[in-house]
Amino acid sequence: MKNESRRNFVKTAAAAAASLPLATVSSVESKPKAMKSVFVHQVYFWLKNPDSTADRDKLVEGLKTLTKIKEIKSWHIGIPAGTSRDVIDGSYSISWLNTLKDRAAQDAYQVHPIHTAFVDNYKHLWNKVVVYDAVDVPL
Amino acid sequence: MKNESRRNFVKTAAAAAASLPLATVSSVESKPKAMKSVFVHQVYFWLKNPDSTADRDKLVEGLKTLTKIKEIKSWHIGIPAGTSRDVIDGSYSISWLNTLKDRAAQDAYQVHPIHTAFVDNYKHLWNKVVVYDAVDVPL
Repeated sequence: MKNESRRNFVKTAAAAAASLPLATVSSVESKPKAMKSVFVHQVYFWLKNPDSTADRDKLVEGLKTLTKIKEIKSWHIGIPAGTSRDVIDGSYSISWLNTLKDRAAQDAYQVHPIHTAFVDNYKHLWNKVVVYDAVDVPL
Repeated sequence: MKNESRRNFVKTAAAAAASLPLATVSSVESKPKAMKSVFVHQVYFWLKNPDSTADRDKLVEGLKTLTKIKEIKSWHIGIPAGTSRDVIDGSYSISWLNTLKDRAAQDAYQVHPIHTAFVDNYKHLWNKVVVYDAVDVPL
């Protein structure tokens, strides 16, 4: 490599190394990030035995199997946060949130063998489930 | 710069430039990403006039003001996805999802002037609102 081209390569590589992590950090931390072009699949489960930690752990075990489904972009397994204003429904046992690329990905998720096995193996634990599916509002 | 140290710098910078973007891409695209250490604030609105596109647009305008609140990490404004299994509630008009760092951030969001102004200025549009707050299940 000639000295001139080596210098240019050094500049380019150094600039890339310096700028990329900074860009990543600022986009994640500095301002609220819009989730766009996603399908939001939000599920709330009410356990038959809401006071049973064993049943809750079992359902969480089942939900964790779903996190292997590659159509999922991001996921969260939650419990009520303990907030209590009059508009808040904190009566559910477990929340299961995931985002996917689009409706086709959600359809694939629904019929995925891991998902159908989850329903078969864990549905005895809950007596109510409510699902809210959302796509981006046209802006 | 001596040849040897220049070579090492080239190697280091090139390795950094090559590895960082790859790491970023793989964490975003290759496997489902866990949302951990977050407070998930999920709100569903039912409009008084659910068939009014003008009212829906107005509410979306209001929700967009909330996206300036710096406590929010990520957000999504949605509409029902058109799915229709028996467990799905697709009767709401607009969904408003956001994630925050923790309960303290959510408490700050609730009393933020932009949020209180939103409630004052747009509450005439809805006749029902349901909120689900969730924190990470202990794993």
